[in-house]
Amino acid sequence: MEKKIRIGIAGYGNLGRGVEFAVGRCDDMELSAVFTRRSPEELRVASGTPVYSFNDIETFAESIDVMILCGGSKNDLPEQGPELAKKFNTIDSFDTHAKIPDYFEAVDASAKTSGKTAIISVGWDPGLFSINRLFGEAILPEGETYTFWGKGLSQGHSDAIRRIEGVKGAVQYTIPVDSAVEKVRSGSQPQLSTRDKHTRECFVVLEEGADKAEIEQTIVTMPDYFADYDTTVHFIDEKQLKEEHSAMPHGGFVIRSGKTGEASNQVMEFSLALESNPEFTSSVLVAYARAAYRMNKAGDTGAKTVFDVAPGLLSPKSAHELRKHLL
Amino acid sequence: MEKKIRIGIAGYGNLGRGVEFAVGRCDDMELSAVFTRRSPEELRVASGTPVYSFNDIETFAESIDVMILCGGSKNDLPEQGPELAKKFNTIDSFDTHAKIPDYFEAVDASAKTSGKTAIISVGWDPGLFSINRLFGEAILPEGETYTFWGKGLSQGHSDAIRRIEGVKGAVQYTIPVDSAVEKVRSGSQPQLSTRDKHTRECFVVLEEGADKAEIEQTIVTMPDYFADYDTTVHFIDEKQLKEEHSAMPHGGFVIRSGKTGEASNQVMEFSLALESNPEFTSSVLVAYARAAYRMNKAGDTGAKTVFDVAPGLLSPKSAHELRKHLL
Repeated sequence: MEKKIRIGIAGYGNLGRGVEFAVGRCDDMELSAVFTRRSPEELRVASGTPVYSFNDIETFAESIDVMILCGGSKNDLPEQGPELAKKFNTIDSFDTHAKIPDYFEAVDASAKTSGKTAIISVGWDPGLFSINRLFGEAILPEGETYTFWGKGLSQGHSDAIRRIEGVKGAVQYTIPVDSAVEKVRSGSQPQLSTRDKHTRECFVVLEEGADKAEIEQTIVTMPDYFADYDTTVHFIDEKQLKEEHSAMPHGGFVIRSGKTGEASNQVMEFSLALESNPEFTSSVLVAYARAAYRMNKAGDTGAKTVFDVAPGLLSPKSAHELRKHLL
Repeated sequence: MEKKIRIGIAGYGNLGRGVEFAVGRCDDMELSAVFTRRSPEELRVASGTPVYSFNDIETFAESIDVMILCGGSKNDLPEQGPELAKKFNTIDSFDTHAKIPDYFEAVDASAKTSGKTAIISVGWDPGLFSINRLFGEAILPEGETYTFWGKGLSQGHSDAIRRIEGVKGAVQYTIPVDSAVEKVRSGSQPQLSTRDKHTRECFVVLEEGADKAEIEQTIVTMPDYFADYDTTVHFIDEKQLKEEHSAMPHGGFVIRSGKTGEASNQVMEFSLALESNPEFTSSVLVAYARAAYRMNKAGDTGAKTVFDVAPGLLSPKSAHELRKHLL
């Protein structure tokens, strides 16, 4: 039997837990270690995998084939990505769109020097949605691409509400406007404003004595986050927030509408309906870990994105099996 | 300015005409020649591209970068694929599923010897649908994949009806059963029989004096083609057939429904709604021609399938542009 791919998890939050479950479903992988910045002895992980301090991570360079970076894009990855690519093949979900080119360069410099393979910005957006935007453009060059998100919980927008004084807790759902989606699917290539495409729905728990009307006004007029959208605010109590809004569903659509021949309408659509956003992202990270391992074995080193990875590298099946059963 | 990719079309039917239109929409390509087994002087092509006899095709080995094979899987490609890969980088849409492994080996032997790159079985199924089946399995290993086709015109089933004595003309539409698609989208992973997934609708023109009831019976009980489906037969006249059933729409869905974490349902879906099936297939062939050209330049020779092609190779944009604008 072939040797299993040895996976390490760097950071054990929602993503890390998702990776742990996803590796458990892959017969060709084993989870070797979890690294945390908390006290390792205080962290119990579901699979019983050994937990180590982040400070010791480099001593595992020889015993881990792919390190999956499960930290956040704002504070963790800008430092960890380039640092860990000096010792490991890595996968991360860096998703600060505007900073991707700089981040790529930093990780690439490390990975080229170390001879490692580092696939950045993996997940569903950036990730699978990006691949579908690319396919749409490449196959139907005369056309328009539309991305809709939701229905789903947006972490960034929920955080923005929580920072308002007088707010004790909050979640925000991004909701695609059905009529806009239908217009796009019809092939009519409509011009859609930000307000046309999505609405925002907020569920807010107030601190005692907070001013409802004022807080609602602060939310719906907040620039960048809410001002350009039709936003609805519901005030609920803490029990409701916990019971009804603890899940992390998400999803969305990438639709390419284009013309071929003289004037035939062609519509391509990729969509996701996810009960757990972090668990799905983790599952994508794990599939790309398999690709990183194989690309590194083949001498294909440096920083990569999903655009650089041939689909076959994601599957545990051989190229022959894939041609026979999936083509 | 970079040199344009010089494309040849081998076979000028619906697919060939679609390739001609699609190349016209790509700034980095030019159509160099069309090859036909008819008399070249009798064939006028829309773009005014020179037309040559298939017999002379090998003399163009130095002046064409990628030859797009637009013949059929039954009679043309089994011979042309291995033959033309001796002289050209090639793209084809070979879609006889059961024979793909043998066809791959034959084309691979030619292309390895000649140092050419030959991407076989390109299109939407096999092709884009195959890629989505692979992504689904690799990302959600615990789950089920469902492929639905339609609503669309099936050439094979239309031909089967036309072969019945007393039938003058016919078209057949494959129609996915809405309730089955909805069950799959819900994440419930239903068991579906052939009859549960699709219905078949036939529009038939009779020869004078043909027996309606007998022909209807012959159709609905035809093994492999119709016996396992709920099939409806409509008798129409020749004018209706021409006016209402000359288009070649098609499409369908690949849906992967799987579980992550402890029990979260996750649903991935890729769908196509095509006004012209051959024109869309042609557009896919042309995008993969770009990839074949680049892979060959990079020394990646032999037979390939869509599973071997990194998405970025399909786009005229640079890797840097793709990371900046599409990721």
